[in-house]
Amino acid sequence: MINNREIKLINSLKRKKNRIEEGLFVVEGEKNVEELIHSSFQILDIYATNNWNSEVEHHLISEKDLGRVSSLTTPNKVIALVKTPKQASINLNITSLVIDGVNDPGNLGSIIRTANWFGINQVICSNNSVDKFNPKTIMASMGSIFKTNVFYTDLKNYLKESKLPIYGALLQGDSIYDTLFNDPSILLLGSESHGISKELIPLITNKTTIPGGENTESLNLGVSAAIYCSEYFRQKN
Amino acid sequence: MINNREIKLINSLKRKKNRIEEGLFVVEGEKNVEELIHSSFQILDIYATNNWNSEVEHHLISEKDLGRVSSLTTPNKVIALVKTPKQASINLNITSLVIDGVNDPGNLGSIIRTANWFGINQVICSNNSVDKFNPKTIMASMGSIFKTNVFYTDLKNYLKESKLPIYGALLQGDSIYDTLFNDPSILLLGSESHGISKELIPLITNKTTIPGGENTESLNLGVSAAIYCSEYFRQKN
Repeated sequence: MINNREIKLINSLKRKKNRIEEGLFVVEGEKNVEELIHSSFQILDIYATNNWNSEVEHHLISEKDLGRVSSLTTPNKVIALVKTPKQASINLNITSLVIDGVNDPGNLGSIIRTANWFGINQVICSNNSVDKFNPKTIMASMGSIFKTNVFYTDLKNYLKESKLPIYGALLQGDSIYDTLFNDPSILLLGSESHGISKELIPLITNKTTIPGGENTESLNLGVSAAIYCSEYFRQKN
Repeated sequence: MINNREIKLINSLKRKKNRIEEGLFVVEGEKNVEELIHSSFQILDIYATNNWNSEVEHHLISEKDLGRVSSLTTPNKVIALVKTPKQASINLNITSLVIDGVNDPGNLGSIIRTANWFGINQVICSNNSVDKFNPKTIMASMGSIFKTNVFYTDLKNYLKESKLPIYGALLQGDSIYDTLFNDPSILLLGSESHGISKELIPLITNKTTIPGGENTESLNLGVSAAIYCSEYFRQKN
């Protein structure tokens, strides 16, 4: 069973402000909760309908009540209340995907999923980026958010501190296909609307670009990030 | 000015059934309408707020009325009513991105945008795929839908008829990085949940896969399609 206080709490966590205040966030859907259970994240409560097939301890919730707390158009059996972990420290010596301004929560989730696929386990976002615990980000990450370290930081400081080569994605630069990516590397992409911030440009060691685009001005940020990860991975292996 | 009959008509076009019946669809936002104007699509009417900066003939619409017809969370200055063009014929001899079941309208838009970037101007979808004139597809395509031929057809017939090599995206196969892509090629991807249909598998001439994925089960369909397009383009150039 779920009581009204809990319904109110879960719904309040749709907003970032409340997630920070409470130190909690919500994970929904079979696939994501399954990955959550196998992670080191601290689960406070799981609410599931009676057709959720799992041995894990949980409270029963009616379809109707699940609909009252869900962020999904089609609620999917189970929802978990999770403690926000403390942010660990950035590892300055490993390959990282660095995003200077991602606003769309689905895009961030997809970026985390792609990075994880290609074995890049550190994603670093500028402080003005969308929250990784946004329900849409978690959903789009398909569980990979529990296996990837996602940081928020001042990118200028981070990039200055790191000693790795920084491959920046720009409109003008060497083709990524002709660029030799170091292992480890920093892959730096900017937002779709504004690109990489002016103040970060001088820190880029290798100005690169995705060739093509004769007819189109730009690619979706999640797509650009995927093409960088893919090309880095191709060369590495 | 926009009258109630027009408001009702535009809103009805949010549904595929009505788009087919009326032979009309809607394009929104500055970027998309700008690309539309430069295309060969037949525009019936343009409604724009007084801060739309264009010489093109249009009716004025208030912010409030634009909000009443818009599919966007943040309506963006202009909306156009467009005649659905007749479906042309598939060109059997050019490189095509073929999608067996894309359900998410934003994903389809992003796929069209990516194909266009890499110079692939023919996208062929199975008949059960989401409509290309869905407002979210048009929005995500960022205008590239007006520069790309997007077809719906029985994929089995199309693939049988074509004489080009068919590179299928599967969970098991040769790494795409070790595969020599022919020019022209057919790049075939299945839906995220079901993959390529069983009946199409025997038609694949080159079984391929995106390596990686030790920790993650899958990639977003738009991301997989982008990685195929990128690798095809890299080898071609």
